[in-house]
Order: sequence, then structure tokens, then C-alpha cells
Amino acid sequence: MRFFSDNAAPAHPRVLEAIAAANRLDTAYDGDQWSAKLDGAFSDLFETEVKALWVTTGTAANSLALAALCPPYGAILCHRDAHIENDEAGAPAFFSGGSKLVLLGGDGAKIAPEAIAEACDRVRPDVHQVQPAAISITNATEYGLAYRAAEVAAIGNLAKQRGLALHMDGARLANALATTCESLADTTWRAGVDALSFGFVKNGGLNAECLILFRTELADEIAIRRKRAGHLLSKGRYLAAQVLAMLEGGLWLDNARAANAAAKVIASAAPARLVYPVEANEIFLRVSTDEATRLRGAGFDFYDWAPGEIRLVTSWDQEGEALDRLAAAIADL
Amino acid sequence: MRFFSDNAAPAHPRVLEAIAAANRLDTAYDGDQWSAKLDGAFSDLFETEVKALWVTTGTAANSLALAALCPPYGAILCHRDAHIENDEAGAPAFFSGGSKLVLLGGDGAKIAPEAIAEACDRVRPDVHQVQPAAISITNATEYGLAYRAAEVAAIGNLAKQRGLALHMDGARLANALATTCESLADTTWRAGVDALSFGFVKNGGLNAECLILFRTELADEIAIRRKRAGHLLSKGRYLAAQVLAMLEGGLWLDNARAANAAAKVIASAAPARLVYPVEANEIFLRVSTDEATRLRGAGFDFYDWAPGEIRLVTSWDQEGEALDRLAAAIADL
Amino acid sequence: MRFFSDNAAPAHPRVLEAIAAANRLDTAYDGDQWSAKLDGAFSDLFETEVKALWVTTGTAANSLALAALCPPYGAILCHRDAHIENDEAGAPAFFSGGSKLVLLGGDGAKIAPEAIAEACDRVRPDVHQVQPAAISITNATEYGLAYRAAEVAAIGNLAKQRGLALHMDGARLANALATTCESLADTTWRAGVDALSFGFVKNGGLNAECLILFRTELADEIAIRRKRAGHLLSKGRYLAAQVLAMLEGGLWLDNARAANAAAKVIASAAPARLVYPVEANEIFLRVSTDEATRLRGAGFDFYDWAPGEIRLVTSWDQEGEALDRLAAAIADL
Amino acid sequence: MRFFSDNAAPAHPRVLEAIAAANRLDTAYDGDQWSAKLDGAFSDLFETEVKALWVTTGTAANSLALAALCPPYGAILCHRDAHIENDEAGAPAFFSGGSKLVLLGGDGAKIAPEAIAEACDRVRPDVHQVQPAAISITNATEYGLAYRAAEVAAIGNLAKQRGLALHMDGARLANALATTCESLADTTWRAGVDALSFGFVKNGGLNAECLILFRTELADEIAIRRKRAGHLLSKGRYLAAQVLAMLEGGLWLDNARAANAAAKVIASAAPARLVYPVEANEIFLRVSTDEATRLRGAGFDFYDWAPGEIRLVTSWDQEGEALDRLAAAIADL
Repeated sequence: MRFFSDNAAPAHPRVLEAIAAANRLDTAYDGDQWSAKLDGAFSDLFETEVKALWVTTGTAANSLALAALCPPYGAILCHRDAHIENDEAGAPAFFSGGSKLVLLGGDGAKIAPEAIAEACDRVRPDVHQVQPAAISITNATEYGLAYRAAEVAAIGNLAKQRGLALHMDGARLANALATTCESLADTTWRAGVDALSFGFVKNGGLNAECLILFRTELADEIAIRRKRAGHLLSKGRYLAAQVLAMLEGGLWLDNARAANAAAKVIASAAPARLVYPVEANEIFLRVSTDEATRLRGAGFDFYDWAPGEIRLVTSWDQEGEALDRLAAAIADL
Repeated sequence: MRFFSDNAAPAHPRVLEAIAAANRLDTAYDGDQWSAKLDGAFSDLFETEVKALWVTTGTAANSLALAALCPPYGAILCHRDAHIENDEAGAPAFFSGGSKLVLLGGDGAKIAPEAIAEACDRVRPDVHQVQPAAISITNATEYGLAYRAAEVAAIGNLAKQRGLALHMDGARLANALATTCESLADTTWRAGVDALSFGFVKNGGLNAECLILFRTELADEIAIRRKRAGHLLSKGRYLAAQVLAMLEGGLWLDNARAANAAAKVIASAAPARLVYPVEANEIFLRVSTDEATRLRGAGFDFYDWAPGEIRLVTSWDQEGEALDRLAAAIADL
Repeated sequence: MRFFSDNAAPAHPRVLEAIAAANRLDTAYDGDQWSAKLDGAFSDLFETEVKALWVTTGTAANSLALAALCPPYGAILCHRDAHIENDEAGAPAFFSGGSKLVLLGGDGAKIAPEAIAEACDRVRPDVHQVQPAAISITNATEYGLAYRAAEVAAIGNLAKQRGLALHMDGARLANALATTCESLADTTWRAGVDALSFGFVKNGGLNAECLILFRTELADEIAIRRKRAGHLLSKGRYLAAQVLAMLEGGLWLDNARAANAAAKVIASAAPARLVYPVEANEIFLRVSTDEATRLRGAGFDFYDWAPGEIRLVTSWDQEGEALDRLAAAIADL
Repeated sequence: MRFFSDNAAPAHPRVLEAIAAANRLDTAYDGDQWSAKLDGAFSDLFETEVKALWVTTGTAANSLALAALCPPYGAILCHRDAHIENDEAGAPAFFSGGSKLVLLGGDGAKIAPEAIAEACDRVRPDVHQVQPAAISITNATEYGLAYRAAEVAAIGNLAKQRGLALHMDGARLANALATTCESLADTTWRAGVDALSFGFVKNGGLNAECLILFRTELADEIAIRRKRAGHLLSKGRYLAAQVLAMLEGGLWLDNARAANAAAKVIASAAPARLVYPVEANEIFLRVSTDEATRLRGAGFDFYDWAPGEIRLVTSWDQEGEALDRLAAAIADL
């Protein structure tokens, strides 16, 4: 029974159906009827005019956004646990032509405005040191915590004061919002976010993510960068159709709620072991090596996050039975 | 009736079925059972040990290969009509960190060994000039001509003598081989090709291409570069399954034969108008602006390639009726 | 007797004296009193407010300017004989992060507005093709021809219409102006030039060139790029002092006049052999292989430019005797 | 009285004389007689065959070396106080095409092998994380500490075990050796160093540094990278002559000894305030804001290194009187 990664889960049937329905002659690249609907669909969803570009990975979405928001000679402030620092093989530096990540601390991989201000203040304003140009936050964080809209807004305000752009890696934004019950608009552009990597693949998508630009004037440059990075698929309609299917009827939020609910079942089994409150579809538990071995022996698969800590991830399609068995197994440790 | 691009065509039903069949829980990235089969499947197909990495675009395949074959300070020799020069937004320079394309002439976008030798001889062997490091040829060429295995081998021999790597952009390799009836092995690694971008999307795939490495020692570096460029999809099984479906029972060759046959129907309608012999699924016709307007008026869509020249492209699924009507319309001009 | 390159000539004594005079304690990098005078000195010279940054090579000046004027995904239009294309090891692509040089023809390495317009028109305005962002012209050209101010202005006008930036590689700008007798202002910013690489090393300097920015708002970015490229010397005063010495009393123009006069002596010896009129300090002669051998046998050193063509270069310090002997030897061929 | 930076000091008279002596006609770039002597002179000095390339800045030397030792997708381990991290505007990432600096701790900016091993062990050996490829150490360190040959060798051994290249930033290597009295050979290549940035400018040079390659096979690639970065000066003889003058009669070591001796005078005045033992020409003192103000009021100039810490730097030409006055002023605080 796999609790290793939400990337392991299959795509939602409605996503597959949308792909099948898009399987007919249409214009290549992003000239098709599905791609043409993205800007409108996301503008409705976000209650403001946005530009939306499909890509196939969160790494591409993050790096394309950051390359437009940070010059090659600038720095991006992020948490030291951030995906862009630890799990993207240096992609932000590659896409931007050499920009630097400046690493911040913060509980639960959440960044506080104070940490940003301190990091900025440490940089001498001269040509010898790389000057901060952007902030990237992850919501839900790498520890599964959700930023409240007000928390994002505090960062957004600071960003504005300091002349920094603000990017949000929303690989699990749906899960965060399913917990906070705040609006997409409030949690992003109204809080000062300039660009958002909106994740769908971990949430029931097949291979389409979406880069949402609240500063719509960035779209032309990013469209060029997307092509130049080999990310303009020649049959883009299959990506656009997936994304539209995820939006249709709020499937993206339903899926996230289902995954979060599954996470809650596990979390409830061992409240004392929780490293952090569960606010998305990830559960981090304090578990000894011995206990981890016993869980694995019982057929559960998961990730060793840190010494004495394991990570369990639930998906939109998690079956009740496996969940109950895992919850019981944890409670029995 | 669309003869604009083979990218406009839908995916083959067996490709869609393969995606649906892969829609279950498996390991993320390329750790799944389908991805694990690629090396073996292509090694069988090419009659030698190869490494095969899925990607979603030909641009990514080309650029990843060239970045491994050419240092940032080196030059890649290619035809001036090459896709990497004209249609990839500078991707090779981006992926390689600044390498240069040196443009060669040659009828029908085909490169002759002499042109390569001359280009090399023009470069002073000093630090002031960018030194050639690799050759990239396109098969079938941008004008739809197929390289014979012996032609590739002549280039391969020269590459060896000059210490140059050899890359083949095989976006339409299937169509070329459907015409030459030569083997994949003879046309690629036995002729000195180091890396091949093997195209599937234009040939009935959905969004999976494959980079084939005959120098298998390049695979580790390219796997890193693929991740770093945002091209390691988190649910890679849907790409691998597509590719395996295209190989299964020779679907890749059947589709190419069908597209080529359709092209022959059109070509036969106007032999005197052909700019080049039709050896793949592209037909280049000498057509006046007036004539082009009449064809469009009759409901046919195509690409204005050059003054007085149009390009028509056929697909694996081309219906006989539209073909016959187009052939008639051309004959009637 | 060396007519190979003006880089072979020594530095002017006043340049050496200026270095010696600057050899005392002062602030590091460009915080010294000499560096502080550059903006003012060049603003006076150019009759407008400019920013001036010392660098040690023309390659650095060219590439820093172009990196600020052209995005990593843009193209720079230049002559196919341009130094940035042939003699800088791909530096523009390196500094800019992957930009592309689009090569134009034109007699005597001079670019005509028509050639620029045609090159732009050939580019489809889409994301697949690299879009032109800048023009770079060399004055004097690689064939020693001088642009008249009106010629530059014609290019400048076109640049403005097309939204292109305009850079001038002025490695031998002094020699050009010594011929045209036009003003620095008319030949550069009044004609639409945004940034100028003003050469001093070939003209009696030791190792200081100067990048002149007419768009002064570029200075901050370029200062960062200069540092990041390792071109912010820690004892910059020795560069600034050289440049100031070259400006002092018009030494830059005197030196150029001397070199041009020397070139005229040689040119007069063989008017029929001249490939182009001599408008700077380079003479291109039609000379057979045999004749070249005889000249070399007589002790003259020069560069084989092309089959049947040699290049001779004169310097600010050219002695009359060697010149006369060379003139005689050429006349005797 | 300036104790701000050794970059503020003038060049040694013998360096100026060497420049004047080189001021005659010779071959351009690095084809001159002075440049031709560098490999031999340094091979003698290091007791092994080396390749030596002049450059004008330590940043260029460091970055050129690291670009050859670390692929664009690799990581360089260095101290978090390292010059390459804090004072080079991101140059290593620029030259290498995007490589990453992984920051280590260590007292006095010295790196211990254990810190390196731990940093390596923290990296998962997969394509998602940037893999370590090189180590860069600074000798003397940013806190003026000298590595003993045995300490370098311990790092060198670890580097070999882990397959990492080893670079030494020797901006103040002369000062370090003046203290350790160990040999250049023992402290560098015999200890496993692959490439060394050998500093001369802070030590009495004018604007020439030298990159020393113990892995001589790297020279060709680095020579190309030097040109491509605009660091191949057209009149290189003035750089080579400077470097040779610094080597002649051991001037480099004499200058370093003089600067170190001056530092000792200051250090002796306030042993209890020393943050670290003084092993080069830098003195770091614990001094309150008030005390710093009083020192400045007395006419001394220096750098505020950190809260409660100042840095004083001495030079090869430090006059006894200013030193004595500073020592007295510090003692009086």
C-alpha cells in the first residue's frame, strides 16, 4: 500500500476522458481551441485577468516564472527546504542564466517576513554581492503547511517595499486551500503574488501543470522562454484539455479535499507523533527506525524524510480500507 | 481539409489505449514499469545496446543531445534550413550554455560531407574562433528528403576523422525509413550517429518523443540535464507507455507508410510542380499566389513555405476522400 | 617589420606616464579619483551625458553592451565579417546567456539599412524563431571602411522603427573619425547609437578600453555584469588613468591620424591593388601567394586575410623608414 | 591612514619597471616573449609541470578554473564566507553556466574535511539534487588563516575519494606561505589541488593575476573560456611581465612577508581583541562601535566586518610610522 508520493497515483477518469475527447484534428502547439480557453477559465477562477500557460512539470513552471522575475545576476529568496532548492536539479539557475538561491529558515518550511527582511539586510547594496530580486514561497509548504491569505499578504507587502517579485510554487495549492477555505484570489494576487505555478499532476492530473501570470505583461516573454526550453508541446491540446477538466465543476478542489481527508484519517491515528499539524495531504510522523521497519513489514510504503521522521502522502483516490489499515498500524506501534 | 502540419493530427487509438492502460498506481518519474522497458525495447529495435529517454518534444530531445555532444564554447554544424536553427527559438544555445550553430547549404536541406569539410576548414584552429564540435542532420530533411544509410555513413566517417559528434534529428525518421526501406541500425549507429531524436508525436503519438543514445555513457549526464530542464515528468509512465505502443507491432512504421502513401497520392497529381521528390510525408509544390488562393478557397489548408512554394503535410490518418479531392484540385490548377 | 596588427604596437609614452602617476594609494575597484572622472570626461567629449565604464578588452565591452541590449532569447544582427562573429570565441552568446547572431552581407563589411530590414522581414514574428533585438555595427569596419554619420543615422532610424537597440563596436572608431572628420556625437548618439565600445588599446593604449553608454540607465546593470564577468579590476585606477591620458589633448585622435597617414603611404604605393579605399589604418591588398612570399622574404610581416588578399595594419608609432621600404616593395611587385 | 584593503596599495616599483620594459613591439594576445615564459617560470616555482594563464582579476581566475572543474549541473562546496560566494557577484554560476555553491561552516572560514563529507552525504545521489563536483578553499582564508600543507592534503584526499576536483583561491597565498614557511608544492598540487588562483594584485602587482593548472590537460579548454569571457587581453605582454617581475628574486614572498610583519605589529598591540590569530596580512579585532568611531576619528580607515568586529589589512608598502600610530591607538582604546 503506497503512501510514498501523490505522483504515484493515477490520473482522474475525467482527465482521461478529456484527453480522449481532445483527440481530433486541431491546430498545433497552443493554437487549439482548448488552449485558447485557458486564459478565460483561469481569469474567471481568479476573479481577475490572468494569463495561463500549460507546461508538463512543476519544475518548468517554477523556473520559467523565476527566469522572468529574476535577472541572471539576481537572487531568489526561498526556504532551505524549498523544492526549487532541493529537488529541481538546479533548474532555476539554468533557466535564469545563473541566478542564485538565498536560503531562509522557518518552521515547517514556512517563510516569515522577518526572515526575508533579514536576508535582504545582510546583502550589501553593491556590485560585489548578488542582489535579491524575487521571493519564492511554496503553498502548501514542503512540510504540508498552508499559508493563510494574510500570511502571504504580509510577504507580498514586504516584497513590494523591497522591490522584489513574488512567486508561489503551488504544487499543492489545492490542498492548502481545501484546508484554509480561503479564496484563490485572496491567497495569490490580492496578496501580492506575481506568478503562480498551479499544480495539477499531484492532484489527479496526467501530465499538465499551469503557470498563472497575474502580471500579464510577462506572458509574451515567458511564452518565448517556454518554447526555447522545449516546453511548447506540438499537440498542446492534450495538456489544455486536462487542465480544463480539472477546473470543470471544481474537480481540482474535490480531489484535494479527498486527499486531505485521507491524510486526516492517518493523522488522527497518532496525534502525538505529528511533526506538524496536517494541513494538506502530507503527514510527517516521528517514527523510530524500528517502527518504520515494522510499518514497511506490514506492507506500507513511504519516504524517510529525516532521521526519526517519515513522510506519508495521500492521493485523491485513496481507498478507505488501506487508510484504515495504515491508521491502525500506526496506532499499534 | 487540413494539410498544414502532422502535429495537427490526432493520436493513434492504440496510443490512447496504452495511456489508459497505464493509468494506475506506479512509481513516480521514470521509475515505473513502462519506463523500465524502454532501453530494452529500443536495444532490440536498433540491434545494439542503447539508452532511451522519453521527453515531450523534439526540441527537448535535440537540445539535450546537443548539450551533451557540444561544449558551451563549441559549434554545431547544421543545414541553414534545419529545425534547430529556424524553429526552436534558440534552444540549442540555451541548453548547451551558448554554443553556436554554423549554417551549411545543400539541396533539399540535405548536407553533403563536402559542405561539412569546407565549413571546418574555414575555421582557424585558435581560441578566437568557435571550434566545431558536432554535426546535426535531419532525416527526413526539412524538405522531406530521406538520407540513405550510405549518405549518413559518409557524414559519419567525416565526423570521426574531424573529431565531431553526430546527431540526427529524426522527427520524421519513420517516414524516411518507410521510403528507403533500410534498417534503423544501418541508418543510425552503424553510420556513425551518436544520438538520435526519434520522433513519435508527428507520427501518431500524443506527447512522447524519445532520445536514443548510441553512446550509452552519455545517459547519466543527459538524465541530469533532462531533470534540470524540467523535462522529467512526475508521471513518466504515460510517456513510456505511448512510446511502447508506437513500437508494438511496428505501429511507428505502419503509420509512416500510411502518411507517405497519402503524400504520394498528392505528388502524383502534379509531378511537374514538385520542388523535390517526395520521400516522406511532405510535399513541396511550386504554386503561384493566385493558385494558392484558389486551393485555400476550395477548403484546403497548408503552409506558405517560400515565395511561390507551398508545403503540404500528410498524416498517418489521412482520409482517402480529402486526399482525392486535393489531388484533383491541384491537377485542375 | 611588422604590419600584422595594431595590437603589436607598444603603448604611447603618455599612457605609461599616466599609469606611473596613478601608482599611489587610492580606493579599490572603481572608487578612485581617476575612475570618478570618466563620466565627466566622456560627457564633455560626446557633448551629452554619458556613462563610461572601463574594461580591459573590446570583447568585454562588446559583450557587456550586447548582454544589456539583447535578451538571452533574442538575436543580434551583424555583418558576417564582424569581430563579434569571427574573433570573440562566442562571447556575445556567453555574456547574454544564449543570444544568436544573425549574419548580414554588405560590401567592405559595411551594413546597409536594407540588409537589416530584409533580415528582420525574414523572421516570422512567433515564438518559434529568435526575434531580432539589436544591431551591432563596426566602425571602422573589419575592412577598414568608415561609416559616415549619415550612414549610421540611417541605421539608427531603422533601428528605432523596428524596436532594435544599436551598438557600435568602435575598436577603431578613432581611425574612422580621423578620416570622416565628423564629430563623435554625430557619429554615435545623435545617429541613434545606444552603446559604444570605444577602443584605445589598438590606438596607443596599454590595456584599457571604454564602454560608453548613451542610454545612461543601463549603467547599473552593466556595472553588475562587469563585476560578474570578472572585469571589475581591483586596482581600476590604472585603467582609468590610461583612458584619461588618451583623451588628454586629443591624443586618441592624434594617434589615429598618425596611423591613418601611415596607411595612406602604403596605399599610395599600389592603388590598383586596393580591395577597398583606405579609410582607417588597415590596407587590404590583392596580392598573389607568390607576391606575398616575396614581401615576407623582404622582412615584412602581415596577415593572410583571404585567398589572394593580404591585410596590413599600421600603428600610431609607425616609423617612416619601414613604411617607405614597404611602399617600395609593394610598388616593385 | 588607510587599512581598508590591500587593493588600495600601489604596485611595486619593480612591477612598473617591468611594464615599461615590455613596452615595445611584440606579438599580440599571449604570443609574446613574456607570456611564453610563464609556464616555465611557474613549473620551476612549483617543482612540477604546470600551465599558467594570466588574467586580470581573481574573480576571473576562480571562475575560469571552476567552470572547467564543475559541470553546469554540478555543485561546488565552499565556505559560507568564501569570496566566490560573497564578493564575486555570482561569477562562478555565470562562468560555469549555472553551477551551485553549497555553503559549509568552519571556524575562521577554514573548511574541515568532516564538513565536506557531511555536505556530500546530505545529497541524495539522484538526478533531483545537484551533485557535488568540486571543492574550493581559500588560502589564506577570508579570516586571514593559513592552511597548513597537511590540512590541504586532508581535503585533497577526501576530494579524491569522493571524486571531487579541488580548487584553491590563493588571492593571499603568498601571505599564507610567509607564515607557514611550507613550500608552494606541498601546499598545492602535492596536497591534491587541481587548479590555483595565484594572487599578485593585492601583493604589489598592478593588474595581473595568474591561474595555475596542475592538471595541465585543462589548459586548452580554459584558454578558450578565457577568450570567450573577454579575458584574453590583446597586449598580454604587460600582464606577463608583471607576473614575471613578481616572481623574480622572490618579490612575491618578500612583499607578503612585509605585509604580514606589518599585521603582526598591529596584532601585538591588542592580543586580547584578536578574533583569530594573525597568519596573513589581515587583522580582525573585537572593537565596539564607539571604539571604532574613535579610531576613525584618529584618522584610521578600515572595514566593518561584522557587528563588533573590524578588519584591518596591511600591504607590502606599509610605512612604519602609520603602523606604530595605529598600534598605539588600538592599545589606548
